[in-house]
Amino acid sequence: MDEFGFIAEYLSRLAGPEGLELKDDAAVWQPPIGFDAVISMDTLVEGVHFPKGKFDAQIAQKLIAVNISDIIAKGADPLGYFLSLSVPKETNSDRLKDFCHGLSIAQKSYGVKLWGGDTTRTSGPITLSVTMIGTVPKGKAVLRSGANNGDLLCVTGTIGDSYLGLKILLKQIDTDITQARYWQNTYHIPRPPLALQAAILKYAKAAIDISDGLLADAEHMARASGVGMDIFLSTVPLSTASTAWVLEQPDHQTARLQLATGGDDYQVLMCVAEQNFSRLKKQASRHEINMTAIGKVVAGTNVRCRDSQGREIPVTHPGYKHF
Amino acid sequence: MDEFGFIAEYLSRLAGPEGLELKDDAAVWQPPIGFDAVISMDTLVEGVHFPKGKFDAQIAQKLIAVNISDIIAKGADPLGYFLSLSVPKETNSDRLKDFCHGLSIAQKSYGVKLWGGDTTRTSGPITLSVTMIGTVPKGKAVLRSGANNGDLLCVTGTIGDSYLGLKILLKQIDTDITQARYWQNTYHIPRPPLALQAAILKYAKAAIDISDGLLADAEHMARASGVGMDIFLSTVPLSTASTAWVLEQPDHQTARLQLATGGDDYQVLMCVAEQNFSRLKKQASRHEINMTAIGKVVAGTNVRCRDSQGREIPVTHPGYKHF
Repeated sequence: MDEFGFIAEYLSRLAGPEGLELKDDAAVWQPPIGFDAVISMDTLVEGVHFPKGKFDAQIAQKLIAVNISDIIAKGADPLGYFLSLSVPKETNSDRLKDFCHGLSIAQKSYGVKLWGGDTTRTSGPITLSVTMIGTVPKGKAVLRSGANNGDLLCVTGTIGDSYLGLKILLKQIDTDITQARYWQNTYHIPRPPLALQAAILKYAKAAIDISDGLLADAEHMARASGVGMDIFLSTVPLSTASTAWVLEQPDHQTARLQLATGGDDYQVLMCVAEQNFSRLKKQASRHEINMTAIGKVVAGTNVRCRDSQGREIPVTHPGYKHF
Repeated sequence: MDEFGFIAEYLSRLAGPEGLELKDDAAVWQPPIGFDAVISMDTLVEGVHFPKGKFDAQIAQKLIAVNISDIIAKGADPLGYFLSLSVPKETNSDRLKDFCHGLSIAQKSYGVKLWGGDTTRTSGPITLSVTMIGTVPKGKAVLRSGANNGDLLCVTGTIGDSYLGLKILLKQIDTDITQARYWQNTYHIPRPPLALQAAILKYAKAAIDISDGLLADAEHMARASGVGMDIFLSTVPLSTASTAWVLEQPDHQTARLQLATGGDDYQVLMCVAEQNFSRLKKQASRHEINMTAIGKVVAGTNVRCRDSQGREIPVTHPGYKHF
């Protein structure tokens, strides 16, 4: 199958009207009056961001999810995306079909459509890049830079499941099959909290999605806002499976720290005024999404990780280092 | 240098205000009232779209140029772009710096700024993807689908120089040094006719940029418009250097056909009403850009390549086949 056949056969079914049926050079679109466009780009490389040889429906869902988390962390409503797909010549059409099936599932989950892109050959690892577009009421995008001294720091979902999923894939930990499957599924198909987009827009003063690691991403937000942050490690929300894993480890605190710095969570970390937290939590529970306060914004700089007595825990690697 | 250092040191200097100093997860932007956004994505892979080992200022300029041509072929004014840069771990900072220098040159040439993107590691070939954004008056984007029976088919610049540049790089042809340098420069740094964007918007009824090959891209436009096209091979504009090359070849017609199907030109092929051609040509000559009528839109389907007596020339490969 050549590029044009692939586009006509599989990709065109995923296209929104803005993408002109993928039959032109570009997409044409205008945000509704009173709205800004919020645009983000995230790339996944085989062997770096997903296991070698794994190019399937799950990776397609991950690709969309990691881009959705950027958009909703800005309080924006995701609408459409552009896909750059670089695959080796010998990739068979069943694998391409499976990948497109995953895109279709993700499109339904997140309410987005394909607006365009490029498909190319590569001699190397499969490389997938998405540019995602959403809208937010004019001037209301939630930035990293809006945190103020006194705000509560809170986070959606649970943290560390993807990290343990990766550890299992790398055969670095051993566990029973049910937990393993749960963690791996979370690693392959993260679930950013789309249902909370409107609540993030309403209540969050600053927000960021967690890709590098909870502590590293908190640091990015603290730096952009010119504030410090105290994060209480024991309050970082864990799944039942991950809690069980922590309790099996010789040093619980070190284990929790691993989860809080592992990354790939694609949950949203945000700062809210203290008086709004209960409203935000209520919105979240309406959508059966965890919302947990894990710390406070303080004067100064840098993120400090603290134990339940308030003592600072030394952190050597707050998250994934790029390059 | 890690990703954050690279962004702070080099990329942030290239950023426009929409990119929030590259310090957030996304860009925030709104097209001016009365304008649509035109968005396009093109990817270049080392060893496929540019020679292995060549990651430098020229490739950066090519990367921007191939995306600019998509935007101006829609009659749109390019504004900003997102860059996905996947490079091996061992890429040294001088090469990254040189690449960014090329981006900076291209940004000045085309009046665009960096709005965001992603930088990742790869074990394989360097992979560069750009999503380019421009604006066009609402509803006025020039599509592939607007050609009508009786329109003139015309093209900017000269065709085939990039093809000969590639042939020299592949050591498939031999020539004197001046010509070789000219062709290679055109291959590495194509020059889409930005100055004609407003004229394309005003006069073109349909347009496409030439990446796969003049005849192949004409075919894409003919199909989208539901028309046929007659292209007279001897009228396809060639540079002085390429004309000299044609005259040296045993079969001039075959040589011309190679140039008209080689691709990588990044010029604009467009359909205009016959009565507007002289105005369009005047606009082009004001900017010292060639504008040449090469054929006609006719009823029916498919593109036919004809000799100067009007006889059809058989074409087995109208352009670059993808995948």
